[in-house]
Amino acid sequence: MRMVDLIAAKRDGNEHTAREINWIIQAMLSGEAPDYQLSAWLMAVLWRGMTERETIILTDAMIHSGQVLDLHDIVPFVVDKHSTGGVGDKTSLVVLPLVAAAGLPIVKMSGRGLGFTGGTLDKLEAIPGFQVSLSIEALKATVREHGIALAGQTAELAPADGKLYALRDVTATVPSLPLIASSIMSKKIASGADAIVLDVKVGRGAFMETLEDARALALLMMRIGQGLGKRVTAVLADMSQPLGCAVGNALEVQEAILTLRGGGPPDFVEHCLTVGAEMLLLGGAAQSPEAGRSALQSMIQDGRATAKLREWIRAQQGDVRVVDDMALLPQASVVSDYIAPVGGYISSIDAREIGVIAGILGAGREQKGDAIDPAVGIVLHNKVGQAVQAGKPLATIHARSETALHEAEARLREAIQIAATQTQPPPTVYEVLRG
Amino acid sequence: MRMVDLIAAKRDGNEHTAREINWIIQAMLSGEAPDYQLSAWLMAVLWRGMTERETIILTDAMIHSGQVLDLHDIVPFVVDKHSTGGVGDKTSLVVLPLVAAAGLPIVKMSGRGLGFTGGTLDKLEAIPGFQVSLSIEALKATVREHGIALAGQTAELAPADGKLYALRDVTATVPSLPLIASSIMSKKIASGADAIVLDVKVGRGAFMETLEDARALALLMMRIGQGLGKRVTAVLADMSQPLGCAVGNALEVQEAILTLRGGGPPDFVEHCLTVGAEMLLLGGAAQSPEAGRSALQSMIQDGRATAKLREWIRAQQGDVRVVDDMALLPQASVVSDYIAPVGGYISSIDAREIGVIAGILGAGREQKGDAIDPAVGIVLHNKVGQAVQAGKPLATIHARSETALHEAEARLREAIQIAATQTQPPPTVYEVLRG
Repeated sequence: MRMVDLIAAKRDGNEHTAREINWIIQAMLSGEAPDYQLSAWLMAVLWRGMTERETIILTDAMIHSGQVLDLHDIVPFVVDKHSTGGVGDKTSLVVLPLVAAAGLPIVKMSGRGLGFTGGTLDKLEAIPGFQVSLSIEALKATVREHGIALAGQTAELAPADGKLYALRDVTATVPSLPLIASSIMSKKIASGADAIVLDVKVGRGAFMETLEDARALALLMMRIGQGLGKRVTAVLADMSQPLGCAVGNALEVQEAILTLRGGGPPDFVEHCLTVGAEMLLLGGAAQSPEAGRSALQSMIQDGRATAKLREWIRAQQGDVRVVDDMALLPQASVVSDYIAPVGGYISSIDAREIGVIAGILGAGREQKGDAIDPAVGIVLHNKVGQAVQAGKPLATIHARSETALHEAEARLREAIQIAATQTQPPPTVYEVLRG
Repeated sequence: MRMVDLIAAKRDGNEHTAREINWIIQAMLSGEAPDYQLSAWLMAVLWRGMTERETIILTDAMIHSGQVLDLHDIVPFVVDKHSTGGVGDKTSLVVLPLVAAAGLPIVKMSGRGLGFTGGTLDKLEAIPGFQVSLSIEALKATVREHGIALAGQTAELAPADGKLYALRDVTATVPSLPLIASSIMSKKIASGADAIVLDVKVGRGAFMETLEDARALALLMMRIGQGLGKRVTAVLADMSQPLGCAVGNALEVQEAILTLRGGGPPDFVEHCLTVGAEMLLLGGAAQSPEAGRSALQSMIQDGRATAKLREWIRAQQGDVRVVDDMALLPQASVVSDYIAPVGGYISSIDAREIGVIAGILGAGREQKGDAIDPAVGIVLHNKVGQAVQAGKPLATIHARSETALHEAEARLREAIQIAATQTQPPPTVYEVLRG
């Protein structure tokens, strides 16, 4: 087989055979297919697409390009969740302890943030002492003892995906549905998941800007999962405005703690209950989404949610006192309110731009390996559809310097739009697709 | 500027600015844009195409990526010709001395054959002693003294095209109209041409298989030439069957000599007169195509054509005796007739397959740098539309071994189709487009 012939086949819109796809992945790992051929192939894939069959085969080839975790000695049925990424998305911080408190053991591998979206590892590391670098053995021991554990992804899982993703990133071949779907699913399945709740975000602050595109991605990931013997549920959730109110690592930890205590922003609470209930359902820990939701609500009400959070933080060497004293979280030196320039109703809060502003403040990274500041960020006081008064605070900015503060203020004026008439707020969850 | 953004722009179907295209070519030469980004860009160009404006700018950038020959100290107005490549295409061997004999000085740089098509340099080197490695100074001295000179292309001419072509070759991005057109035109213009006759081949043995595609390529090259201040004429010529009868280096030299002596195959003679007349017209050495054609015919009739051929061969150290004694050309050890299996009329001679068979015999090369055998090849005795009798020779095979002979015979059975009813032969020249 020659790579140039396989590129030509995809260029001409042909479907690859399983043998061809497996050959490409092996030739990539062995170096027989050089990057310049792989990138031409990636662009041809972006152009011509892949059939469902090809996408499932590609995912399977990437899963088996490295180690595949088997966690069944610890957890009989592994339920994972994955968010396609957004702004203010601290869902895992709430849902993991909530679901674990409700009796479903949770073991998860997460990534770091890049660009305008945050990452769960970065958020957890805002808790002083919290360790995310666990060996597989430590991960297993933690979940066995506490019913919950989270670690950073290791390079041994789906290395073909890692290599392909790095090449896509520099060759403008990221936005291809089969490549996105196979990348996500290969990592999840290689990390040992039996069932996955996909939290697919829609809107300006998400990769998929329309409900139609998000649904297509969700359905493709569901088919891949099913094709490889996994159960998959997809939650299509809004990301036109940030999720909840806090954007920035320590600020989001604070909002997650408040949520587990029963005081979270309504949209974020709703989102966490939806995702968490679907996890309980997949994991057999609830008979219906309604039963799951009600179980989770009682965890919040009776304090078992915060108890599980404390147990989790302690198990991973974090300072457990933050749950009761949030002043122990990193604090920004400059904290200032952003004042509404006019009165009216909030008509839009551009999630992507809020993410960019948080990045400017120092909460995000441009490139892998960049340092981030856990303390900085933005807390919104109002969301779309709510009334605001001129001269009253619309948001609080947590910054490292006056310069950064002023830049954030200037950009917030564009990011938060105020209109004379009231806008219907977007739904938190558009739909739930069950496989 | 970042290459990844330029790839994304082309991926999304946008037009590049002149600054962007020049940046890409410079970044390619400096190494700032690595091959894996260039190949993704090439595939995006193949997918989305390029506007005429972009194609002209790309051509210009490639021309100026290296040395640009200025031959005006020797030849006041440089007329070049270029064939898009075919099987049995020995046109330059006839047209160059013919046009030079008619008073238009000719200086030309040629390439070698690759795949199923032959190259002028390989053909000329079948003449014992013929030197094609001339320095620019030697090239100029030769044309000054003899009115004709031909040399191999140097790497200093349009190096960006050389690099881009090598990458296209291994990434399945060759068949892109703007990339093909800019590649050809950049080399021609960098070699000093003021005017060019493009010999665009159409059919199974050519890159462009339909007249429509060939016309599109011809028109694009004409626009590029005009955009860069050059006069361009395009001849759309048939390549469904081989041009003339001989395929193979020494065999084609022999046919070229016969043609200059007045005994060439009718289709090949017609083709040479068409291309040559257009060159005379562009170079101001004829007032009309008809006047040019008649001037060339008289060169053949009165022996000035063969006199110029002798002068040319001598000037480039070749054995001039071959013009009168063709047995001095390399001879194959196994020469055998291919016999018509049935009687009837030749309905098709697959030019590409004849080229492949010549390659199997040893006349062509699979990869750059492969050695070729100048003696081997095929001479057809009949062409499409002609009657053949069962048991009579259809072609003569010149081979290195009995094994190669038998393989060629077996494949000729498929390549040459015989039908009960007569087929109209294809025209030699479909049309001439004058800029």
